[in-house]
Amino acid sequence: MFDPVEKLKEFIRHPSVSTDSKFHEGMKGAQEFVARLLASLGFAVEVVPTELHPIVLATRGGDPAWPHVLIYGHYDVQPADPLNLWKTPAFEPTIVGNRIYGRGAADNKGPLMTNIAAVAQLLEANPKLPLRITFLIEGEEEMGSPSFPKFLLAQKGRLASADFVYLSDTALPTPDQVVLTCGLRGLTLFDVHVTGAKGDLHSGLHGGVLRNPIQALAEIIATLHTPEGRVNVPGFYDDVLDVQPWEREELKKLGASEQAYKDFLGIDTFYTTPGFSPFEALRFQPTLEFNGIGGGYQGEGTKTVIPSKAFAKISCRLVPNQKPDQIKKLVIDAIRARAPKGVKLEFVDQHKGDPYVVVPPDRSNTPKDQSPVLAQAFRAADKAVRDVWGRPPLYLREGGSVPIIADIKRETGLDSVMFGLFLPEDNLHAPNESFNLDVMKKGIETTRRILAAVAAK
Amino acid sequence: MFDPVEKLKEFIRHPSVSTDSKFHEGMKGAQEFVARLLASLGFAVEVVPTELHPIVLATRGGDPAWPHVLIYGHYDVQPADPLNLWKTPAFEPTIVGNRIYGRGAADNKGPLMTNIAAVAQLLEANPKLPLRITFLIEGEEEMGSPSFPKFLLAQKGRLASADFVYLSDTALPTPDQVVLTCGLRGLTLFDVHVTGAKGDLHSGLHGGVLRNPIQALAEIIATLHTPEGRVNVPGFYDDVLDVQPWEREELKKLGASEQAYKDFLGIDTFYTTPGFSPFEALRFQPTLEFNGIGGGYQGEGTKTVIPSKAFAKISCRLVPNQKPDQIKKLVIDAIRARAPKGVKLEFVDQHKGDPYVVVPPDRSNTPKDQSPVLAQAFRAADKAVRDVWGRPPLYLREGGSVPIIADIKRETGLDSVMFGLFLPEDNLHAPNESFNLDVMKKGIETTRRILAAVAAK
Repeated sequence: MFDPVEKLKEFIRHPSVSTDSKFHEGMKGAQEFVARLLASLGFAVEVVPTELHPIVLATRGGDPAWPHVLIYGHYDVQPADPLNLWKTPAFEPTIVGNRIYGRGAADNKGPLMTNIAAVAQLLEANPKLPLRITFLIEGEEEMGSPSFPKFLLAQKGRLASADFVYLSDTALPTPDQVVLTCGLRGLTLFDVHVTGAKGDLHSGLHGGVLRNPIQALAEIIATLHTPEGRVNVPGFYDDVLDVQPWEREELKKLGASEQAYKDFLGIDTFYTTPGFSPFEALRFQPTLEFNGIGGGYQGEGTKTVIPSKAFAKISCRLVPNQKPDQIKKLVIDAIRARAPKGVKLEFVDQHKGDPYVVVPPDRSNTPKDQSPVLAQAFRAADKAVRDVWGRPPLYLREGGSVPIIADIKRETGLDSVMFGLFLPEDNLHAPNESFNLDVMKKGIETTRRILAAVAAK
Repeated sequence: MFDPVEKLKEFIRHPSVSTDSKFHEGMKGAQEFVARLLASLGFAVEVVPTELHPIVLATRGGDPAWPHVLIYGHYDVQPADPLNLWKTPAFEPTIVGNRIYGRGAADNKGPLMTNIAAVAQLLEANPKLPLRITFLIEGEEEMGSPSFPKFLLAQKGRLASADFVYLSDTALPTPDQVVLTCGLRGLTLFDVHVTGAKGDLHSGLHGGVLRNPIQALAEIIATLHTPEGRVNVPGFYDDVLDVQPWEREELKKLGASEQAYKDFLGIDTFYTTPGFSPFEALRFQPTLEFNGIGGGYQGEGTKTVIPSKAFAKISCRLVPNQKPDQIKKLVIDAIRARAPKGVKLEFVDQHKGDPYVVVPPDRSNTPKDQSPVLAQAFRAADKAVRDVWGRPPLYLREGGSVPIIADIKRETGLDSVMFGLFLPEDNLHAPNESFNLDVMKKGIETTRRILAAVAAK
């Protein structure tokens, strides 16, 4: 008997931080764990090497006439720092009430385990289930899936035989309300390094003669937004997709409270693109954020130094139909044009991903050529959600990014059914990440019903 | 026979970083080293405890009728990081050519050892030298001498029996040109912490609804200077002392080249208060600098986070007659007034020090009530410098700070004769700090002659 919670604990214990080479062992452990787990369920498992972290590809069901679902997940997690803010050890799963705490519990180990458990139940009940299932579990999601495009080019013939992609790597707004995610933001990330003097200088002996790179960097950053909340970069909004009236209506059904959201964030005022509520802004509008900044002395006490260097880590979340490379160029051009004299700039490329949008069947802007199998999958999901959760799902775009969804669409034409399972209070990418075990239970039942319905076609 | 270079090596080997509690052992080692060394020269040594690092007070010469010189120095050093930029180990003295490398070699262990060696030579030649000498060697200079005011209040009766203060903790512009420093900048330091949301947030799930504290901090920092190079804080320049014509003339004699200074700094353009050359600006003008900045993710790769917090370490170098507390208040008031909505501010006080000025005898603005003993000391120094270095000293204010000089003046009325020994290329407060051993040799001879002349009065 497959115990999803015990399996999830085992999964979390592997500290699989993909962006930090110190976690090589944890990455290997998590990858081997999912490979063994799927093999034990009767899957033919391949571990496909990449330049960084291998991709686990596992298949079952040999009849080409059967429907074919590609289930996506990732075994890597975000860095856990700052560690001192964790109340329980980041990589030792700890259950408190109906929650399991640990880095990756919600992003993405818990939701992925939910879908694996649903498959395990289906196959336990019917080992001959007439459904082809391919699990595609990568280890570079948290670094922007740099190896995925090459993998996709090599494997796309095989993957394209699927009918749709199914995944749980998006959000559930409340424990009672499922969202089937119809859009994801893309992103582009880079670092900017500012250099003043060639070395650190004594601020007494040399203070007052040159521009401090921290000041220069701050002066650049301060130009990148308007006081009202727009990104202040020419051309930044040119390709932003118009919001459809049904999207705004669907969002209203969410019934989200601005005051409750303020309280959750711990802020007293929002700062959004003018004309958008916070709930609209994070789904329908692009951003330019500063994920990190550093320069000079940051330790205890003081050091009276004029640093030689300062840097910022910048990311833009993009909406359809913005293009990551073009947006990055616009921002870098603006930074170059606005940099004060007396400092040098360098840019370091990080990762990127396209935004994605899929329109569910029977909506005003559903493309006429939408695949009937995709429409069937959406309708099966709609019914399963109504039956298990007692109310229909909402169809919303979301603020987060799963860049490979757009990559798969571009290369294979496959669209995705995204059944989100992590809650706002799950603390993704932050200390004390957790996953709701009641949600996991209902998630297993929902995925089981969706896959059973697809198999019955 | 006293070997100054060997003693200096021994001194540098104690990693005496006062601002970082991890270096407790190194602080203790350096303090005990100077105490033992002075005792071996026949001084009566007291180690005066403070709340942080003890002060070494050593005296010789019992006749109250003898002239009395108070020689100041400090046994603590700046932090050595970033350690990876050091070519030799920071706390293992290494001689290359005529230079000794190591943290503290120039600030202040080398210059202090120069003066101890001069005293050792004088006492070796004449154990009955008719001169009272008090060494006052503190361990908190690099943290702004927080314990010094209390020490001064307790000991000021005793210290006030001195005729003047003598020290080598200022700069030598070139190996051939001595400067007797007539002014020091003061300083005030504090940290500003900016908080946005109550925790770090996922930039996809929440990006676009709130003001990032890095952005808010940058927007604040960007307001604090004008594009032309003035500090943009109301009232900041109100108390700045006018520059005397003789000061500008004396500075011209320095013959410093702006191009050579640019090359030394590795910059292509200066950024000074308008109307001041870089050499004037760093002596006669106050600054507002950013010594450090931090926030969010600074590690390898990326972390798509909206950080909860960001901070900057700010310091102002002050000139006579600016007051540290008043300037700090003006800057903090400006920051509060300019902070954008949606973030909270917190300020952490660091140390401070008054600026100082003494006018050498026979200058246009020498006060009429100047102490004749101070004038004699200056004239003895002038002659010794001409004899040993082959040209007269220059009398200049300097950009650095030795806050206790102003404290001593305020509490005891004593002025200081500052005989600078560290060169611009000595890399103070930076990696690969070093001290020129030829300068040390001439410095020993100069101090020996000055003290001999004062004793002969």
